[in-house]
Amino acid sequence: MNNIYLDHASTTKLDSRVLDKMAPYLTEIYGNANSVHTLGRNAIKGLDEAREIVASLINANFNEVYFTSGGTEGDNWALRGFYNQRGNKNKIVLSSIEHLAMLKTCEHLETKGVEVCKISPQKNGIVNAVDYKNQIDDNTFLASLMLANNEIGSIQPVKQVAEYSHEKGVCFFTDAVQAIGAIKVDVKDLNVDMLSFSAHKFNGPKGVGGVYIKNGTKINGEILGGHQEREKRGGTSNVAGAIGLAYALKYSRETLEKDALYVTNLRNYFIEKVLKINDKIFLNGDRESRLPNNANILFSGISGESLLYKLDMQGVYASLGAACSAGSINPSHVLTEIGLNELDAKSSLRFTFGRENTFEEIDKVIEIIKNILKDL
Amino acid sequence: MNNIYLDHASTTKLDSRVLDKMAPYLTEIYGNANSVHTLGRNAIKGLDEAREIVASLINANFNEVYFTSGGTEGDNWALRGFYNQRGNKNKIVLSSIEHLAMLKTCEHLETKGVEVCKISPQKNGIVNAVDYKNQIDDNTFLASLMLANNEIGSIQPVKQVAEYSHEKGVCFFTDAVQAIGAIKVDVKDLNVDMLSFSAHKFNGPKGVGGVYIKNGTKINGEILGGHQEREKRGGTSNVAGAIGLAYALKYSRETLEKDALYVTNLRNYFIEKVLKINDKIFLNGDRESRLPNNANILFSGISGESLLYKLDMQGVYASLGAACSAGSINPSHVLTEIGLNELDAKSSLRFTFGRENTFEEIDKVIEIIKNILKDL
Repeated sequence: MNNIYLDHASTTKLDSRVLDKMAPYLTEIYGNANSVHTLGRNAIKGLDEAREIVASLINANFNEVYFTSGGTEGDNWALRGFYNQRGNKNKIVLSSIEHLAMLKTCEHLETKGVEVCKISPQKNGIVNAVDYKNQIDDNTFLASLMLANNEIGSIQPVKQVAEYSHEKGVCFFTDAVQAIGAIKVDVKDLNVDMLSFSAHKFNGPKGVGGVYIKNGTKINGEILGGHQEREKRGGTSNVAGAIGLAYALKYSRETLEKDALYVTNLRNYFIEKVLKINDKIFLNGDRESRLPNNANILFSGISGESLLYKLDMQGVYASLGAACSAGSINPSHVLTEIGLNELDAKSSLRFTFGRENTFEEIDKVIEIIKNILKDL
Repeated sequence: MNNIYLDHASTTKLDSRVLDKMAPYLTEIYGNANSVHTLGRNAIKGLDEAREIVASLINANFNEVYFTSGGTEGDNWALRGFYNQRGNKNKIVLSSIEHLAMLKTCEHLETKGVEVCKISPQKNGIVNAVDYKNQIDDNTFLASLMLANNEIGSIQPVKQVAEYSHEKGVCFFTDAVQAIGAIKVDVKDLNVDMLSFSAHKFNGPKGVGGVYIKNGTKINGEILGGHQEREKRGGTSNVAGAIGLAYALKYSRETLEKDALYVTNLRNYFIEKVLKINDKIFLNGDRESRLPNNANILFSGISGESLLYKLDMQGVYASLGAACSAGSINPSHVLTEIGLNELDAKSSLRFTFGRENTFEEIDKVIEIIKNILKDL
């Protein structure tokens, strides 16, 4: 039997067209993009091309796009970079269901005396923008809210919170890592000051990401060194990676509407079927305002870990939550934040679909789940 | 005419055998190494394999090797990570000819009140270890010295300075980015607490590097997030990159002695020939204690930039200094630190050789230089 990959929120397969675009920079055009000779200039042409593509796709200017090593670096950069420009302000307001990259870095900043105010979501996994409005004050140097949650896929009111932030003169950052390949992202429409993304979430290579930083935003670089990335991010440019990121975003954008529709139908088909298996199965998070590819399912009374392993043994790849949290003995902070108790949180699995998945696969997975549940 | 690449210190061409080793992780084995399903476990097998190879090649333990996005991140990590563990100590001692990744990060730490003590090298580009001994005191939380300089190739007395550091109970870090593919690196022999390296310097891919951190060393992670890299470096693992790094190091080590001998002969042949062109041409840095591949040549009275461009027009790729410094209008800090005046520093070019270069190429380059100098 072929394996069925339902873990697209963890990572995606590199698009072969993307690898083809990367190939010249992995072979002949190997120059350092900072070298002034022809081989270096050919490398920087690739880097410029990548930056131009990304900028145009997210409606940014060329010089507002910076390449990083991935989403986690971008999130760290936002928090630490704004921290170093905080002046006499001392407070960060962010949601309690941010990625660990945000929460762990905030924990670190707390040890330095920063006040970290966490906004809990509503039961449907969506934060109330007004809760932000009430917390953002004169002492706040940064507000942040992810565009879509990585575990339950809930799409957040980023535009509204960005507006509330700016009303108080506060910078606003959004972690768009999970959202950007799945829904259209326009930084001008969202009106954010900074936004992070990662290539491997949309069929690009691992180890490369980027941030948008609005011109005029006061933020320190965090990885310092050479003059790369307009002095904001040192280190020899990973041109093959940047080109991979750019073309992955371009290709994903070209079929975004079609893919989103298809994946939504597939996902809804799965949800309907799985909820019908028995009356102890529930959908976590909002039914409507969620990423097209996400279904987070509570199998009440069942060990999520056992279910996951049994699925794996039958070639079905799902997830207990964020891959980044794997190995943790704690229940998902996202699920407990939306009101699940520890047991229910540990009884929930995340299924995230991709354009390669088929309805036949869903039928097969449903049968497999049914059989496993009989045994458990 | 074929181009002649003499800029191996800036970056090197990805070894096609290395790309072959990376290929499975760029295609079929695309799982997130943190996912617990089979596809994730296959990815982590690759990551483990990479870590094992690197550890054995530098004589470290498996769990002392951490993957990063490159040398600059490693250098930043060392400085910031030890800074966050400084206790009531407040001083860093490092050489004045470190890479910009070190110097810029130190500048940042200075704004936070850290005392940064820079040790100048001797005229031959090598620091005197005793100068470190005299500066490392009870207030020092970190001493650092690069293993080999990236501009003039001078190999530094790291083992001795590490010993002086430890005598005072001070942690010692070495930036081995330029050295590790060119000379044998044994972390136990060097007795360092932390060491950084970058794959693209030894025919590996760009965008991936690593650090060795000796077990028991107290250092904070700097890019925080998921549980990757034993909680010390968050972010989805770049398995293809790690495998690329590991095999590049393995292959470079397999022929290291042979390559070093060949490249040394090639480099010496070049130095002899170029110094004979006229009596205004000199070698910067020590004649003996330098990396096999490095020749940094002062063409007195000549604009290095013009020479570089004219060489480029004839297909010869050299460098004004560190690629990371390209775009700077300042003269090389390394060359001014070894006593060159600004004019001489700007009249110097770095030629760095690789195993693919030939003696015929050197003859050709010498002729080209002769002809250019006639015109300039």
